[in-house]
This record gives sequence, C-alpha cells and structure tokens, in this order.
Amino acid sequence: MPVNLSAPAAASLLPIAGVQIGVTEAGVRKLGRKDLTVFLLDEGNSVAGVFTSNRFCAAPVHLCRTHLASNAGVRALVINTGNANAGTGADGMLRSRNVCEALANRLGLQPTQVLPFSTGVIMEPLPSERIMAGLDAAIADASGGHWLRAAEGIMTTDTVAKGYSAQAQIGGHTITVTGISKGAGMIRPNMATMLGFIATDACVNPDLMQGLATALAESSFNRITVDGDTSTNDSLLVIASNRAGNAPIDSINSEEGQQLFALMLGVARQLAHAIVRDGEGATKFITVVVEGGKSPQECRQVAYAIAHSPLVKTAFFASDPNLGRILAAVGYAGIADLDANRIELHLDDVHVVTQGGRNPAYQEADGQRVMRQSEITVRVHLGRGPAMDTVWTCDFSHDYVTINADYRS
Amino acid sequence: MPVNLSAPAAASLLPIAGVQIGVTEAGVRKLGRKDLTVFLLDEGNSVAGVFTSNRFCAAPVHLCRTHLASNAGVRALVINTGNANAGTGADGMLRSRNVCEALANRLGLQPTQVLPFSTGVIMEPLPSERIMAGLDAAIADASGGHWLRAAEGIMTTDTVAKGYSAQAQIGGHTITVTGISKGAGMIRPNMATMLGFIATDACVNPDLMQGLATALAESSFNRITVDGDTSTNDSLLVIASNRAGNAPIDSINSEEGQQLFALMLGVARQLAHAIVRDGEGATKFITVVVEGGKSPQECRQVAYAIAHSPLVKTAFFASDPNLGRILAAVGYAGIADLDANRIELHLDDVHVVTQGGRNPAYQEADGQRVMRQSEITVRVHLGRGPAMDTVWTCDFSHDYVTINADYRS
Repeated sequence: MPVNLSAPAAASLLPIAGVQIGVTEAGVRKLGRKDLTVFLLDEGNSVAGVFTSNRFCAAPVHLCRTHLASNAGVRALVINTGNANAGTGADGMLRSRNVCEALANRLGLQPTQVLPFSTGVIMEPLPSERIMAGLDAAIADASGGHWLRAAEGIMTTDTVAKGYSAQAQIGGHTITVTGISKGAGMIRPNMATMLGFIATDACVNPDLMQGLATALAESSFNRITVDGDTSTNDSLLVIASNRAGNAPIDSINSEEGQQLFALMLGVARQLAHAIVRDGEGATKFITVVVEGGKSPQECRQVAYAIAHSPLVKTAFFASDPNLGRILAAVGYAGIADLDANRIELHLDDVHVVTQGGRNPAYQEADGQRVMRQSEITVRVHLGRGPAMDTVWTCDFSHDYVTINADYRS
Repeated sequence: MPVNLSAPAAASLLPIAGVQIGVTEAGVRKLGRKDLTVFLLDEGNSVAGVFTSNRFCAAPVHLCRTHLASNAGVRALVINTGNANAGTGADGMLRSRNVCEALANRLGLQPTQVLPFSTGVIMEPLPSERIMAGLDAAIADASGGHWLRAAEGIMTTDTVAKGYSAQAQIGGHTITVTGISKGAGMIRPNMATMLGFIATDACVNPDLMQGLATALAESSFNRITVDGDTSTNDSLLVIASNRAGNAPIDSINSEEGQQLFALMLGVARQLAHAIVRDGEGATKFITVVVEGGKSPQECRQVAYAIAHSPLVKTAFFASDPNLGRILAAVGYAGIADLDANRIELHLDDVHVVTQGGRNPAYQEADGQRVMRQSEITVRVHLGRGPAMDTVWTCDFSHDYVTINADYRS
C-alpha cells in the first residue's frame, strides 16, 4: 500500500508541445503488460541526462552517455521494462544498439539520435527481438496526450503510476512542465534516479541543460532512498522542447531561470517523493532533516545513516518510539569528531533528546503519537555549524521482504 | 532458527585459572532472566579492550576506557542486559559509576578496578538500584566453572548461548582459551563486537595486550555484519590471567606469540561467526570473499556493500539466484575506477559471471542448487590487484522484521 499516493488522472498530465508518446505491450518478460514506450521529440529540442554512478551501469546507460555526447540531436527515446540489460557485457551493448538502430530506421534518424532505457531484472539477456517487433505498434500509438500511458508503461514493482504537471507564467509566457518516474526498490539514487523523464516546453539555452538536469537531480532524486541499493540503470532525462515562445533562458540564476527551476523542481520532488511513497512495502513516508552540521555533506551522511538503518526502519514500521536506534545511527554515521552531548532530536514537534540524552520532559506517549502517523519528520541537530540537508525515505516492512524474496517468480 | 549453531555443553567451556564468574537474576528489565553477571579476576592478570567506534557510545564504554587508562589493575567486570545505558547523558554516567562503586565496595577494590558493560534498550535510564541489589547474589554464585551461565547471562535477542574453548601446548605448557559473546542485531562491529569476553591463562607481557586484542577483533568481530548497525555498546575484552606457567609472551611475531594468537583467533572467530549464525531472523550463513583488489580496504568495502544490501540478503533468504543484485552492489561499493568488465563472480564452485557478464556456461539450476544451502560462499574477483578480505553475514528474512518490530514489547 503506497503512502498517501494515488495515480494521476490522465487529464492532469499536460501535454508538452513537441513531445509525443506511444506505448505498447511487447511481451518483454510477461504478457499483457505495457512494457515498451517510445518518446518522439520534434526537432529543435534540448536534452540532458543524469545517470547512475554504479560502476556496473547497464548497457543502455552507456549508450545514452555516448549518444548524448555525440551531439547528434536527440529525437527519440525507447524504454523497456522487464529487463535491465545490466551485467550483460558486450552482448548487452549489441542488443541495445540493435534496438536503437531499429527505431532510428523506422523514423528516418541516425541511431545516435535515439536514447535507450531499460529497467527490470539484471544479468539476463535483453529480448531485443521482442522489443524490435513491438516498435511499430508503439510508434502508431504516439500522441501528445499519452503521459499517463507512459507512466504506466515504465512501471516494474511500482504499484502506482507516477506523474505530475505544473504550469506557471514565466517572462509573459505560459510554461508547462510534465514528468513521470518509476521505481520502488533498488532505490538509493546517486547522480540520478531509477527512471525519470521531465519535459518542458520552455525555451532553454542548450548549454544550460546539463546544469539544470544535475541541479534538479541533486535536490530531488538524489535525496531519496528506499533500501540503499543504487541501481545499475538510474537515469533522469530532462527535455526542453523550446516551443513556449519565451525568450531563451540563459542562466538558472536569472529571474526567469529561477522561476523555471522552481517549477521543474516542484515536479521533480513530487516524482521523487512518489517513488518513496510507493517504496517496496512502505507504510510510512519519512522526512529526515539534519541541521547544525559543518557542511551539507556531513548532514547528508548522517541523514542517510538514519534512513538506511534497518533497525530505525523496522521501528517506524512497528510505530515503536524506540528512538535510541536513531541516536545509534547518528553515532556511527562517520563524523569522527562528533560531540554526542550536543545532539538534539525532534520527532515532528516532540523534543525527544536534548544534549545527547533523553529530554526530561519527553513522554513516551508523545513519541508514540507521532510514530503512529503515516508521515513523520525526524529532525536532528548536530550542534556543529550552520549547514543542513534533507533525505526522504520509507519504513521497512514484512512486505519489503516478501516483494524482494519473490521478485523474479 | 540459528544456522548450524547449538549451545555449548557446560563442560566444553574450560575454566581459566584466576577467573571466576557469578550470574544472577536481578530483574533489570524482565523477571526470571539471568541478566547480571560478574567476573572476578585474581591479581596479576592483564586486560585489554576494544570498543565501539560509535560516537554515541554508551556510558559503560566511556567508563571502561577511563578505568583501563587509569592502570589501576582490573579485578572485576559487571555486565547487565536489559538496558544499554546509551543516549542517557550525565545521568547514565552517574548510574554506571554507582554500580562500579557498589561492586568495588563489596570486593574491597577501587571503583576504577571494575569495568562495567551494559546491553539492551538504548535511551532508557539504567535501573542501577536493581543491579546493585543483585550484586551480592552474583558474587555468591562465583565459580570457575560458570562460563556457560555467563554466556546465558549476557544474552539479549540471542536465541543460543555462545561460548568456545581451545587448548594447545605452547612453550611446553598447556594453554587454555575460553570465550563467550552475545549479539544478534545492531551488528556491524567497528573496532569491536557487541559483547565478547575472551580469557586465557597464558602469561602475556601486559604491553602486548592491546595489540593482541585489536588484532583479534580485526580478524573476527570486525569482519561480521548482520544489519549494518554499529552498536553503541560494542566491547571486546581480552584477559590473560598469567597462570599457565609459560615464559611470558613478548611479541605476537614470536613462535609462541603466533601459536597463542592462532589459538585465541580460533575462539574469537567461532564467537564472531556464532553471532552471525544467530543473527536476527537468519536462515543462512554467508561468507563473502573479495579478492583481486588493490588493497584489503577496498576489498572490505565491496564485501560490506554485498553483505549489507537488503536486496542481496532477501535473495539469499528466498534461495533465489537473482545474482545481478550482487553485481549491482559491487558496482555501487564506491570504487570509482572499477572496471566492470574484469569482474568474476563465483557462488561456491559455480562460476556465475565472467568478464563482467553472465558466464555462458552458467546454468541457473547450478546457482539454484547453491542458493538452497544453509552455508554459502560468495567469491568476487575484482581483477585489480593482489589484495583480499573476507566478511561474514547472514540473510534477511521476515523474522528480522518481526523481531525488530517487536523488540521492546
């Protein structure tokens, strides 16, 4: 059961001029599932991506990097579920290349103008023949109104399709942003997310795109974790179709740049949070705020230690205010000169720990009340400096074990 | 159900001359449980300890460090379960000091000659009055033959008491080593274990003791993990009662030093492995060997990434050879210049991955056969150098969640 998350209505996902999407059932792994999605992008767009830092990154991630670097101009994306095409060596590269070539041939493009994405089981050969056989149907399905179908088409263990849109007036023009994401397990994005696609019709200087994509990832997908497992296939793609008619945005720091970034970050955060809310077995959505650090980096390190601790996560699942487990995680997070006597801990509005020990005014009933909620904020103050950072995660339940013990069966 | 582990027979745990142990039920947290243990050490012994690196270390860990540093000569240990006395601030220090003082008074010692150890729930006040009220009964119970009672007396979520003895002829004298340990969850020792006590009657130069304790921890308790949570109370204490009559051992590198180290390491490893075998919810005992690294440190880093991955651990629980998850963990372990194309992976004798991709000769049935075993060795070759390291862990089951969601109730 996802935490306070439901699928978007099809009409709530606004089309982006210059972006068409087609989805089909190619039988990649199982029959009767939407598992093949193509994006068709008009000429004149700008695209940038952020990809997994996993050294075992998948063949499609390699190809995305190569094709983007070739500056051939991206005109199509091809996304399959059911198979990650990771840990598949040279054969995996060949199969992924064949898929790009097949789509390029059908659309009159160069293969380097196609970006491939795969998600699913690792270390099994990509059934590229079945994917290529499905391309015609996917192309025939293409429409600007198919964002929800795409959100469904990229799901694996997700239980809910994830998509958001936002609109704002920027520089006198209506700017629209729509994004979709997928992911529920093997989630501890680092440089990217599982799969995320965010498009805007805004006109953006192509030189700005990579910085924009990286900044969006850093404040959204790169701050979530379900199980600490960084995937081999994490990819976030940001598309500007440059059709809104606004004066091209040249800097994130300009007024319009700030407005566009805020608009896109709103969508990116909702997509990232949706992944946590739909985290495998999740019953709670937890925000971990660490402040009073010497640097955002050390705050993040402490926040992830809390967010990854199986003991903390099972206590949240049990609604048990066994909050010493949070202190233990703070203590082993790796800050060598941390002074435990300066730590403060709040659970929502409840002041649990002061000066490293139990707050005399703390009542277990208050901790218990917050722990029963479906949305909880853990706030740790390190008492070392002015920096802070935030990470979002979920609890750790029986269903996580069930889902991951059964995933392939 | 622990993995291939049963409690030792009382007679199999050999007395160590100069060491007496008494155990009682003090009602620290629950009635009817052995929860208070004292060790009484004759004069002339040597003692060294290795303690948690958690910055939130417990009050008794602070006191152990201070008392050992005072060189007053350790003459007694006092160990309670049911309460960790961690995250308890100045009040926790006072309560732990009171317990040391009470035992010292009864034995005619200085408080600094007593080392305190606590294990159990974090962040609740130590019921020091109940512990002090139990000291007389514990002292009255003291006997050289009570090692098994002590192993039982220090258990928390352990399901099986853990103790081993070993004997060897060293320098013409019979040397005996006996040790006990406890721990099942919050296990990722770093500089120490949960609680471990290893005693020998060998004569050892006191200057050698700290190096000996550290070296033992590094090759045993510091290479196990259950859930990656480094405890606030981890402590390994090594005692030489100096009663065996051998010429004092001055160096680990001497012939006798090597022999004693091997004898003690045998006991330390069995104790460390017992903690993993009794890991919360464990159904499998997993040895992770990483070789071909540039340094033991990077091998250890990769081994821990595998050993901590919830996805890898749930796959072991399910006996599912979903081995791509191991590759993903190797990939995100943090070796920035890792060449994925050089990775080899074996599961026991089954060659699963070669040159970073699925071994063409690999049959899933072979992986399945190994995954069904209760003891499995994962062997990863990084293809980067001559170094190696080994880590021991267990799988991740429904029972882990059940145990940790219910721990305090």
